[in-house]
Amino acid sequence: MSQYRVLIDANDEKGLVYKISTIFFNFNLNILSNSEFVDKENNKFFMRSVVDGAVDLKELQDALEEVLPKGTSIDVIAPKKKNIIIMATKEMHALGDILIRHEAGELEANILAVISNYDKLESLVEKFNVPYVTISHENLERSEHESKIIECIDSYENVDYIVLAKYMRILTPRFVETYEDKIINIHHSFLPAFIGANPYKQAYDRGVKIIGATSHFVNNNLDEGPIIAQEVIHVDHAYGWKDMQRKGKDVEKIVLSRALKLALEDRIFVYANKTVIF
Amino acid sequence: MSQYRVLIDANDEKGLVYKISTIFFNFNLNILSNSEFVDKENNKFFMRSVVDGAVDLKELQDALEEVLPKGTSIDVIAPKKKNIIIMATKEMHALGDILIRHEAGELEANILAVISNYDKLESLVEKFNVPYVTISHENLERSEHESKIIECIDSYENVDYIVLAKYMRILTPRFVETYEDKIINIHHSFLPAFIGANPYKQAYDRGVKIIGATSHFVNNNLDEGPIIAQEVIHVDHAYGWKDMQRKGKDVEKIVLSRALKLALEDRIFVYANKTVIF
Amino acid sequence: MSQYRVLIDANDEKGLVYKISTIFFNFNLNILSNSEFVDKENNKFFMRSVVDGAVDLKELQDALEEVLPKGTSIDVIAPKKKNIIIMATKEMHALGDILIRHEAGELEANILAVISNYDKLESLVEKFNVPYVTISHENLERSEHESKIIECIDSYENVDYIVLAKYMRILTPRFVETYEDKIINIHHSFLPAFIGANPYKQAYDRGVKIIGATSHFVNNNLDEGPIIAQEVIHVDHAYGWKDMQRKGKDVEKIVLSRALKLALEDRIFVYANKTVIF
Amino acid sequence: MSQYRVLIDANDEKGLVYKISTIFFNFNLNILSNSEFVDKENNKFFMRSVVDGAVDLKELQDALEEVLPKGTSIDVIAPKKKNIIIMATKEMHALGDILIRHEAGELEANILAVISNYDKLESLVEKFNVPYVTISHENLERSEHESKIIECIDSYENVDYIVLAKYMRILTPRFVETYEDKIINIHHSFLPAFIGANPYKQAYDRGVKIIGATSHFVNNNLDEGPIIAQEVIHVDHAYGWKDMQRKGKDVEKIVLSRALKLALEDRIFVYANKTVIF
Repeated sequence: MSQYRVLIDANDEKGLVYKISTIFFNFNLNILSNSEFVDKENNKFFMRSVVDGAVDLKELQDALEEVLPKGTSIDVIAPKKKNIIIMATKEMHALGDILIRHEAGELEANILAVISNYDKLESLVEKFNVPYVTISHENLERSEHESKIIECIDSYENVDYIVLAKYMRILTPRFVETYEDKIINIHHSFLPAFIGANPYKQAYDRGVKIIGATSHFVNNNLDEGPIIAQEVIHVDHAYGWKDMQRKGKDVEKIVLSRALKLALEDRIFVYANKTVIF
Repeated sequence: MSQYRVLIDANDEKGLVYKISTIFFNFNLNILSNSEFVDKENNKFFMRSVVDGAVDLKELQDALEEVLPKGTSIDVIAPKKKNIIIMATKEMHALGDILIRHEAGELEANILAVISNYDKLESLVEKFNVPYVTISHENLERSEHESKIIECIDSYENVDYIVLAKYMRILTPRFVETYEDKIINIHHSFLPAFIGANPYKQAYDRGVKIIGATSHFVNNNLDEGPIIAQEVIHVDHAYGWKDMQRKGKDVEKIVLSRALKLALEDRIFVYANKTVIF
Repeated sequence: MSQYRVLIDANDEKGLVYKISTIFFNFNLNILSNSEFVDKENNKFFMRSVVDGAVDLKELQDALEEVLPKGTSIDVIAPKKKNIIIMATKEMHALGDILIRHEAGELEANILAVISNYDKLESLVEKFNVPYVTISHENLERSEHESKIIECIDSYENVDYIVLAKYMRILTPRFVETYEDKIINIHHSFLPAFIGANPYKQAYDRGVKIIGATSHFVNNNLDEGPIIAQEVIHVDHAYGWKDMQRKGKDVEKIVLSRALKLALEDRIFVYANKTVIF
Repeated sequence: MSQYRVLIDANDEKGLVYKISTIFFNFNLNILSNSEFVDKENNKFFMRSVVDGAVDLKELQDALEEVLPKGTSIDVIAPKKKNIIIMATKEMHALGDILIRHEAGELEANILAVISNYDKLESLVEKFNVPYVTISHENLERSEHESKIIECIDSYENVDYIVLAKYMRILTPRFVETYEDKIINIHHSFLPAFIGANPYKQAYDRGVKIIGATSHFVNNNLDEGPIIAQEVIHVDHAYGWKDMQRKGKDVEKIVLSRALKLALEDRIFVYANKTVIF
């Protein structure tokens, strides 16, 4: 007996829950949890079920496909560790948080490697027996640099997610398209406020009373991909921008790790540049 | 075509969603939203659906009863304004918040009356053309006082909820049992911290850095009924207990109004001295 | 014996606290609270003291002026109710919150009048015996409409603050300059995200997981004045923009009332398009 | 030219700020920041100043002692790294968070050692070149076990703080008194709710909608020492107690690290079983 995750993304129509639950019943599955969302405006239906029982995944998938409308996306998943590659630059907090969680067994993930454009984090990463690859961007065109990174990533098999743990360089459309909906970033602001460089400086200059962090999938518009998780903290006039940066690290790392966990547990649907999260 | 709320509280067993969604399908109902929760530990199943279509409520109820296990609680509800009576003492913030929301049309409720043991709030309440009944507790035994209140409440028909908007007297078991799961209270602490009298003074004496408010159904153990909603705010050493009290009012009123809205929208299940909220 | 608030805004230099506290000592004043902030970057010094004793305000002011650098702003204030005029459009929640607080005696303020471009809120406002002035904008040029409002405001004496409690029209530079640093607005987003019209719709379209509200002084750049207070609440994919709007009201009213209280208690310094709040 | 922290804890009386700022002025010190708090109820005065200049610490201390009332506590501190010993049991998150922050240079601290009653965390700690001492409690009386720990701690010189990073055994009065106001604990509840064992289970059983964590100094009443920092997160009916435990880890580690930083930066005064935090 095992648990399976069933993810369904369909155009909404009457009877979907009836059809799906009939299949579950016929396969003698027990529903452990069931989350549904209907977006009336866009006529979309999303469902994530965790079921328990003995099934052949392929047969379950086929049975669902048979009853559900053409074009429905159906995923029947037996939970297992996903493969992730982390990219970072020089800051330790977000990367360190993932490494400690991984060490503690909190993440359904294998960390295949950490790739950085500097060697600064090497000694930290190697403590955890994770391969560290420095790919300097110095004296390289952006496209050359990225080609090297892509080559490195592609030397690993079955990469499920690329996690940007404060990777501080803008990715080109080529890179983003290569790993569509697979790249999870942490931006150190409460998006869409303060897109781009040095958001803490921007926040300080604007005199905000709250700062935040946003984890999102990366697309080709800078800091405009689908948002997965956000969190904020209060600041006041006594915070210079470096104080904001210092305090912001706590929320950055928590938000990135939260988004990563959601992805690893197959809890995220992406559509219309948004996320549905169960 | 109308919307109905269907609330189901059952012992969990395989096939419940299948059976329920089959009925919805057979009645040609469209599911607008569906929330489910299975409590494995206690083998309980809860479901709240909002469906859209043309049905005879009684027929739908009967059909569900036929397929669901004996002992299942099934409510098919056509949304309409519920009748509430508010009890208060001297403080204006929580009562005022409800009055303003009612005036703004935010609440699915008729306010039948406000009952208080003082006349202090009368001029406020009468502005809103709501009957105000002063039932002083002076020179009365507790049971006599409550008998008068019960008499007053019972002079109104179909009272759905009694809302204690900072009613500062302890209710006797008789009162509580008379209106079981119908009395919604706001307690001015983050329960179960600071049960009983003057929780802000208690919080101040303990030196906490966060204070809160808790809305709950009232049962016969003081401040120990099923919790509906909680919220907190940060304080620091500079807050005396009266400052906490002052600042706490904002969170008290927001939490009570939030709990009231959940009740009015039939979003709360009560079991095992807890709530399931959809 | 009385309490006074002393507000000092100076260019920073060595010895300011020494000089100020020497004056307080010489006037035999007891310091009840003292808040200071030095902005190193801009070489600015801010101080708010609450002192207790028997003084002639003018003498204290003169003594401070004598020892402090030229150009220092010094305010010695005997707390008293400030005069406010509220402007609103059609929504009840923010206005209602202020009216209830006023009724409860929570605000150090006299509400001179409520001005609206619609008559929708009249019946609410008149319950509280506050004058309601409808100044419709229909068939009027913006400047004509504002002239009428200014005329109305100027018919009252000693107006300390104009509170925009969801007044939904953009003010012209002339209006803003007439009441510089006196106009307190609530914007229904977490600024600087979602400047301008319908921020909840913007937030929904962007797929944010947190929404907020911002109270700020109004200047001539739309939604870009000095921020006084901000607060946020979590939302998820199930919130349509009208749900956000509905839920957002709670945070709007709390934030506006919080900002208003800070202003009434002389706790806000404005400089460099920011606020220092003690 | 250097920065110094001046901490003053006195019985309140008129003229304290005048006297202190006169000394600062006479020593030609620049005040970078100044925080004061007067507790009227207990007639206490607290002040933390950061000053900048060239002074002999001893001379400054003597000068302050000369003018301030007898019994005033005066600390003039040249910031330097403090020595800490961490105690843990089996959980990795709070300890790991401190280790990563230490590695990143975020903490003004030397970690002298980690002491645990299990060897489970040894491989983590040794990655960071921090000594790990396993002192098993098996087959030992509590007092014997603690004697060994005290012996170990006392083998290090100048231990400033002992940080209990989820050390899951109750300390005896002897231990607590040995290191009075030096032991910082993280309790995995929003104190004073859920004192004692398995607070998440207690929280689950009570049906709370918010859980939290509290960092406090340890005294001889279990979980009743002076609170330094608290934080909370929202939960709902779908959280079993193990889910609460899992989610609670994030807030536990953030709160403990926040409290530790406050201690390392000399920002905490303790009195009347409370803290004043600047």
